[in-house]
Amino acid sequence: MTRRIVCTYHVTADADTIESRAQGIAVEQSVEMPLPAITDPRVMDEIVGQVQDIEEMSPGLYRVTIGLAAETVGDDAGQLINMIYGNTSIQPDTVLADAAFPPEILETFGGPRHGIAGLRARVNAPDRALTCSALKPQGLPVPGLADLAYRFALGGLDFIKDDHGLANQRYAPYAERMPAVAAAVRKAREETGGYTRYIPSLTGGLDQLRDQARIARDEGLDCLMIQPMICGFPAMQTLVRENPDMAFFTHPTMTGASRIDPRFLHGTLFRLLGGDALVYTNHGGRFAFTRELCMELGQRATRPWDGLKPAMPVPAGGMTLDRVPEMIACYGRDVMLLIGGGLLLAKDTLVEETRAFQDHVAALSTQAPAASAAAVAE
Amino acid sequence: MTRRIVCTYHVTADADTIESRAQGIAVEQSVEMPLPAITDPRVMDEIVGQVQDIEEMSPGLYRVTIGLAAETVGDDAGQLINMIYGNTSIQPDTVLADAAFPPEILETFGGPRHGIAGLRARVNAPDRALTCSALKPQGLPVPGLADLAYRFALGGLDFIKDDHGLANQRYAPYAERMPAVAAAVRKAREETGGYTRYIPSLTGGLDQLRDQARIARDEGLDCLMIQPMICGFPAMQTLVRENPDMAFFTHPTMTGASRIDPRFLHGTLFRLLGGDALVYTNHGGRFAFTRELCMELGQRATRPWDGLKPAMPVPAGGMTLDRVPEMIACYGRDVMLLIGGGLLLAKDTLVEETRAFQDHVAALSTQAPAASAAAVAE
Repeated sequence: MTRRIVCTYHVTADADTIESRAQGIAVEQSVEMPLPAITDPRVMDEIVGQVQDIEEMSPGLYRVTIGLAAETVGDDAGQLINMIYGNTSIQPDTVLADAAFPPEILETFGGPRHGIAGLRARVNAPDRALTCSALKPQGLPVPGLADLAYRFALGGLDFIKDDHGLANQRYAPYAERMPAVAAAVRKAREETGGYTRYIPSLTGGLDQLRDQARIARDEGLDCLMIQPMICGFPAMQTLVRENPDMAFFTHPTMTGASRIDPRFLHGTLFRLLGGDALVYTNHGGRFAFTRELCMELGQRATRPWDGLKPAMPVPAGGMTLDRVPEMIACYGRDVMLLIGGGLLLAKDTLVEETRAFQDHVAALSTQAPAASAAAVAE
Repeated sequence: MTRRIVCTYHVTADADTIESRAQGIAVEQSVEMPLPAITDPRVMDEIVGQVQDIEEMSPGLYRVTIGLAAETVGDDAGQLINMIYGNTSIQPDTVLADAAFPPEILETFGGPRHGIAGLRARVNAPDRALTCSALKPQGLPVPGLADLAYRFALGGLDFIKDDHGLANQRYAPYAERMPAVAAAVRKAREETGGYTRYIPSLTGGLDQLRDQARIARDEGLDCLMIQPMICGFPAMQTLVRENPDMAFFTHPTMTGASRIDPRFLHGTLFRLLGGDALVYTNHGGRFAFTRELCMELGQRATRPWDGLKPAMPVPAGGMTLDRVPEMIACYGRDVMLLIGGGLLLAKDTLVEETRAFQDHVAALSTQAPAASAAAVAE
């Protein structure tokens, strides 16, 4: 008996074409050839995709579920996304909405190694929402970035991540920048007795990613940020496997949300691959996600899922201090609030603004329910 | 003086919001923070993106050109796509339409190492269209795939590529499958005196990609296929750099065409990164690209471009033998015709059908103009 990944696609079609279109997707995402040309009965029975259900969601829009053989994926994360969406991503009529995975897929990829509890433990915050900001702008020389990190940490922030534009540029190469920022955060921690964690953004090919992870480890760090859609799913898989003690933040750059449902991409796929903290663009900021979509994304990240650890939702993208109460009300306390540019506007009073942010979040969220509870109560 | 990549975006907006939206993209794709929070004058002058032009294309749709500092990219292909589209890919109102690169970017990435002339030389076909088919379906055991390749090669096909679904699955692991197929093609070549080239599809993380490239080299192969949107741009960059004697075919899986103009993604970006042969979905097959878009994609791949070699267009996706005359008329002779499932329907007469395909293409295309000429004549 072949085990199948059950994929859900939303397909725009007419009533008289939807059956053949659904069958077309099932073939495209499995054997990618005319069925009459297949001579091997095992391939027909066990490898060809099977349309399991077609349901009209609204006039001209259908929910199509298709079973794809798990053995076509094997143990490669690149092949996972290739088989569930690859060529069909090129079709304008089809969105990948969701997928349910059989146990061997969950076992192969394993989900978050640390999850929400591991992130909370790192900053000694068992029962409140977490905070985060970002080091920017790119172009700033290393001492400027280190000074920013120092002041964020003095303000008591939980997490400080690199802006995802910080890579290995000549004006601030990783091997100089990262240790300088880590040292600045250590210095502030020694002064305050705080727990602030610095999360460097890893970039480049696997060789460079490994070098950068090693440098972070040498600096005593235990969190890393990656960009799954740019480094590629296979590189993320390798890094997660090779660094089981590191908590991984995923960055949403290049997720181009219109073709893969962002709830599935972040809340399910990035979590499956081992993302511990999932950065995504929150509603009401610079981006277009709705409040409902964001809450559902958060639920996905934290819902019970066959023993996989919950991942921490990190809504971001144009957030400001005055959004804090509403964000806590929306997400509950299992959330990390990431405010970047909005904090940097404070300039000379950055430490005080950071401390106000930190205290505000702690005061509002300690009594808040966990994310899933808040979302379910909606 | 900072050198800039000039990106073109198509933006849906109102007349009274387009200026601030354009400025928003310029900031998002550079410093990603409120400009009043920037204290360093060099960052303001040289790093912040600059809106260069806004032009109304049709009511509510604007062509926006933005200059982004080349030094924010450095020499990493992942950072290239991150800076020109990354976060903006998440915005539903914006499509990345094109980009013009300054000389240091062209020098860093270098474009095709072999290009059209290198592919022609491999199969001794200086002046006609080239042919290609694909080994399918996945699920077929190794001897079945090798037998298919043997018969394609007996039929005189120029190129035989792996179906992009063939990875490292247990039922046909690469280390067994690839050498068996290579041996079958060698055997046919010895019998016919032909030049058929086998192009294995490389999958997985960089370690596995390197292993697979090495095995291909050990088998005497000189062409490889990769999936840039799945292995990631940095992995493609590394492989191209480490294997200068290999010609690279790019596969379009996960290119999700609606958010990055496919003419730019294939014809410009994949070519820039070193793609020698660019597989894309042709009009009139299983996919939705128009004839005009496909011809323009082909022109992009082959147009003169500051000394970068031309790349070979490989239109595919549901092509059949009866499309050959029309495809030659459309693309001229600088094209590789890829027919996969359409040939496999021949089953027992595969060798004869393959030979008919091969001869038909040669007869029709030897006198045809090169692609760019045909396209310009349109």
